[in-house]
Amino acid sequence: MEAVVVLMDNLWVAIGAILVFFMLGGFILLEAGSTRMKNAGHVAGKTIFTAGLGTLVFWAVGYGFIYGDGNAFIGLSNFFYGDTTTAADAGGLTPAVDFSFQVMFALVALTIAFGGFAERAKLSVYVIFAILFSALIYPVVAHWIWGGGWLAEHGKQDFAGSTVVHLTGAMAALAATIILKPRIGKYNKDGSSNVLAGHNQVYTTLGVLILWVGWFGFNGASTFGVADGFLGYVILNTQLAAGAGAVAAMFTAWVKTGKADVPTTLNGALAGLVAITASCGFVAPWAAVIIGLVGGVMVVFSMQLFEKLKIDDPIAALSVHGTVGVWGTLSNGLFALPALSTDIGWGQAGLFYGGGWEQLGVQALGVVASGAYAFVVAFVLLKIMDKVMGGLRVTEEEEIMGLDISEHGSYGYPEQMALEEVKLTTAATKDKF
Amino acid sequence: MEAVVVLMDNLWVAIGAILVFFMLGGFILLEAGSTRMKNAGHVAGKTIFTAGLGTLVFWAVGYGFIYGDGNAFIGLSNFFYGDTTTAADAGGLTPAVDFSFQVMFALVALTIAFGGFAERAKLSVYVIFAILFSALIYPVVAHWIWGGGWLAEHGKQDFAGSTVVHLTGAMAALAATIILKPRIGKYNKDGSSNVLAGHNQVYTTLGVLILWVGWFGFNGASTFGVADGFLGYVILNTQLAAGAGAVAAMFTAWVKTGKADVPTTLNGALAGLVAITASCGFVAPWAAVIIGLVGGVMVVFSMQLFEKLKIDDPIAALSVHGTVGVWGTLSNGLFALPALSTDIGWGQAGLFYGGGWEQLGVQALGVVASGAYAFVVAFVLLKIMDKVMGGLRVTEEEEIMGLDISEHGSYGYPEQMALEEVKLTTAATKDKF
Amino acid sequence: MEAVVVLMDNLWVAIGAILVFFMLGGFILLEAGSTRMKNAGHVAGKTIFTAGLGTLVFWAVGYGFIYGDGNAFIGLSNFFYGDTTTAADAGGLTPAVDFSFQVMFALVALTIAFGGFAERAKLSVYVIFAILFSALIYPVVAHWIWGGGWLAEHGKQDFAGSTVVHLTGAMAALAATIILKPRIGKYNKDGSSNVLAGHNQVYTTLGVLILWVGWFGFNGASTFGVADGFLGYVILNTQLAAGAGAVAAMFTAWVKTGKADVPTTLNGALAGLVAITASCGFVAPWAAVIIGLVGGVMVVFSMQLFEKLKIDDPIAALSVHGTVGVWGTLSNGLFALPALSTDIGWGQAGLFYGGGWEQLGVQALGVVASGAYAFVVAFVLLKIMDKVMGGLRVTEEEEIMGLDISEHGSYGYPEQMALEEVKLTTAATKDKF
Repeated sequence: MEAVVVLMDNLWVAIGAILVFFMLGGFILLEAGSTRMKNAGHVAGKTIFTAGLGTLVFWAVGYGFIYGDGNAFIGLSNFFYGDTTTAADAGGLTPAVDFSFQVMFALVALTIAFGGFAERAKLSVYVIFAILFSALIYPVVAHWIWGGGWLAEHGKQDFAGSTVVHLTGAMAALAATIILKPRIGKYNKDGSSNVLAGHNQVYTTLGVLILWVGWFGFNGASTFGVADGFLGYVILNTQLAAGAGAVAAMFTAWVKTGKADVPTTLNGALAGLVAITASCGFVAPWAAVIIGLVGGVMVVFSMQLFEKLKIDDPIAALSVHGTVGVWGTLSNGLFALPALSTDIGWGQAGLFYGGGWEQLGVQALGVVASGAYAFVVAFVLLKIMDKVMGGLRVTEEEEIMGLDISEHGSYGYPEQMALEEVKLTTAATKDKF
Repeated sequence: MEAVVVLMDNLWVAIGAILVFFMLGGFILLEAGSTRMKNAGHVAGKTIFTAGLGTLVFWAVGYGFIYGDGNAFIGLSNFFYGDTTTAADAGGLTPAVDFSFQVMFALVALTIAFGGFAERAKLSVYVIFAILFSALIYPVVAHWIWGGGWLAEHGKQDFAGSTVVHLTGAMAALAATIILKPRIGKYNKDGSSNVLAGHNQVYTTLGVLILWVGWFGFNGASTFGVADGFLGYVILNTQLAAGAGAVAAMFTAWVKTGKADVPTTLNGALAGLVAITASCGFVAPWAAVIIGLVGGVMVVFSMQLFEKLKIDDPIAALSVHGTVGVWGTLSNGLFALPALSTDIGWGQAGLFYGGGWEQLGVQALGVVASGAYAFVVAFVLLKIMDKVMGGLRVTEEEEIMGLDISEHGSYGYPEQMALEEVKLTTAATKDKF
Repeated sequence: MEAVVVLMDNLWVAIGAILVFFMLGGFILLEAGSTRMKNAGHVAGKTIFTAGLGTLVFWAVGYGFIYGDGNAFIGLSNFFYGDTTTAADAGGLTPAVDFSFQVMFALVALTIAFGGFAERAKLSVYVIFAILFSALIYPVVAHWIWGGGWLAEHGKQDFAGSTVVHLTGAMAALAATIILKPRIGKYNKDGSSNVLAGHNQVYTTLGVLILWVGWFGFNGASTFGVADGFLGYVILNTQLAAGAGAVAAMFTAWVKTGKADVPTTLNGALAGLVAITASCGFVAPWAAVIIGLVGGVMVVFSMQLFEKLKIDDPIAALSVHGTVGVWGTLSNGLFALPALSTDIGWGQAGLFYGGGWEQLGVQALGVVASGAYAFVVAFVLLKIMDKVMGGLRVTEEEEIMGLDISEHGSYGYPEQMALEEVKLTTAATKDKF
């Protein structure tokens, strides 16, 4: 029986890898839809080549830094990955299946990080930072928590990556946002802010739906197998938290502003998903509902706070993946069931189950250490790039023209952008009357 | 061997749940593409929060009403679902896998129902009706047929939900369509009708393709397992019927009107899928082709009929899921193979295989009872809501402005809608010459 | 154990069929995004009904021509497919699972072929050619290589269809492109060419992402099972080659033209995928990276070459699937590992592993024979259609108006096309000042 179950484990995790890769499609739509038409081709298209670069770097060094033999800080073997061990010899996941699953997580973290660069960074910055992030930032945090590093030794629980993927990506995004400064037109001289509305809510909605679909692989295949049919339990918790997040965010926005803003509702669903990512295999379904509801409320206030702090975050990456990533990691220290943690030797039960403050403390330590590492290293690297590359940002003229033209030489929507010019002409014509 | 196969059954049904959830992405595109630009953000976005609401309600009470211990009319246990039984203890699907699969069907039925509300219902109506439908309408019909209720006792066959999901959703949509009345501009004073064309056929096409993909999980995982590799047979029948439906609808439209209308062709593919849903596990491949062909022809005439009856159905939900849902359910009574019905004790063979009129009669009874229940309850609930909420419909001014602005405070396509205003300006300018 | 593994094999290949079908969604977006707004509904919508037609024809005769008992040239049994053998009786894939997987490959090849028809062929041409291609072209080549035909007897290696699917489709596209001639406005009288830019790069980007996702099934399930967890190895190679292709094409374009063109980058990812398709189960990961890199560079030069030869190929089908399909097939003769070829009796090792020129020669023979067959038969059939149907191409007036109106009677984007008319009006107004 064992050998057969091993094949099934490999099958499920391979399917999980496919689902996680599909999440990039969700990000393409979410990011393109949340930005303006003149940048749409760039925002969408850069996801493909940064995924390509990230894949090659992860193959060359990233995977080795996480899972190679090394020390508590970093792994140091398995570079230029080429292990062809079969399932029978591996007695578990084949190295190839494991690699395929892991590389997709690295690409998701990278894509989240690039949320903070939107609509103003040079294309060359994407190229360089994709390499640095995939080599030096993500793998280190992943090694600490998943690769047997020092946080793993402390019993840090992060089922599918609230910290490793979401918080790490968001902290790099935060560093970028601070250095790049707000987009032209976002803030007025009197300190008030303007809405630079995304151009297509159908994209953002479908993007969120695709992310939700892919998340079933992200969380569900983080079981690393089919034992006990436990993957179904993880999927159930994921669904409940996502639904709760969407509902909570919509009503919060409705009450606060009188309107049930669509992008806010969508961010609520994502918040529910991010929040449950750390806990989906540790908590009861009712707790998943609460974790999702809190995430959904939190994301609305977090977006408002960043807006006030003049941190311009077009995709809400900081709130969705950062703020809620922290909540997700901590909530695990509150709600983890003894049967799914202590009893199986994977950390401690949560505070509400008599686990005391211990697990909560470990979770908080993980957040602070991982978040600080990702932020500081990203900040330093970007500052160096800023000097070396003569600035991270396109010129003012290029930003106004749009990055489709400035960085790629053609509009993503050539026919529709031609109509935009008509608008200006018409306005001019009108003035003559 | 058994225990291992049970794990595989759980895996397949969990994947099926993911595929069925992906169908909501298909509906987002189908509905947004079939409606106008001023409503696109609303039409797309409401799918996410109604999915969230539907999930929470199904978790709280819906699942219990279907599968809980109860009577022939309704189940009455398992509320606030939290069963963590493992696969080994369950000896089959874990409760969590089963729940995850079932909740997705409820969300599909809900989304179909909302097809009848498009472009004119208030957002608050979506909120209330999502709760009522997920608690009181869908679970009751599902209990009757799939939860051991009175129609199950009569041997009603509905492999994956032609009746339970599609007809139930469509009957609620019909009730809404009748009460809401046609959209402004749909019918002229002389009784003739106008085409209020959907704004994006690329969306509708991709939407149908995604629905088709998801349907392989909808039908294929309704095997509830991998025994005999039978899921492949179901997938084959699904593919044949969908293809036949698309071809039949396109040629029917071409012959009738001289043009191979794209939306009609797409509705033909959906008609083939709806039609085979009841029968995919009961009939021979050649019968699947015929069932799909008939569904494809039927949907064209049904759309024309509703148009003449002044029932304004922007998404064609009534024809695709209603009319063809009936055909699908009945066709099973014609074509069911003895080897896949009588011999395994699941109802009777179809009329064409000597099963006599018995199975056809049971199928017809199921259609009438389920359809009547869904329609009457939806109608009564909506009428009550109409009174209590001061009308189900936005004001005339709001409808003309579009629901993106009226219900959510911002356009789904802010840049493109600004161009629409240019159109009006230009028209005015032109008049001055 | 065996019987259980057989069920798992069936499950994986069925999931593979679903993933391959999903690739059609990628093509819908890739093709619609690469063409102009006035043709978008047509380009997207025709994919659904040609998929329907292709399915029915493949069911009626195509599958029998490939896998039926017959001779070295063609199979001649199993028409009107209806085999219901179970997994236990089949001792492997059930006929239904095998059929479901195979039909999706035929639909992908058909869709590639139609890339060469874009923006100028009559709808009736799509109808007739879908039938002829699915009956007479694709199945013959597939029989030669996969159905035990004469190339299979020579040890031709084509893991997942670089030749069978991609080259065959591209050769039919080439025949069409030559006969149809360039689109109006593509070439000037002085021989220079114009860019007729596709209208939506977000579509093309998402399309490529979806194709990439589906390709994991295309390649991964061409293992026909879960043995050894080998599917993970195939997925890994697929990911590396795709990433390498995108990176290589972007930098090639950047160096050549000074701009990192988005569509070119996207075609690079596809080139990596096409290139690795023949070899994904035969080569080492480092070789996958090289195969992808070369494919990515090659596609840029190939696109330029066809442009100069005045072969107007809006979707780049000839370069992506043709030129790179040849490279993919040949690269296998260079890089095939002995352990994955000679040792298991599936052809010979590649040139770089001491396999000598033998396997490379067989691969070249396969390319020439298959490519010639597909091109010649497609060319002759299209020439006959040209005579019989009074031309393959819509009238000049219809082409300028767009195929949405001419072939289907309504625009795919009715509201946005109305704005296009404003553009003309505005231009006229402006001239009056």
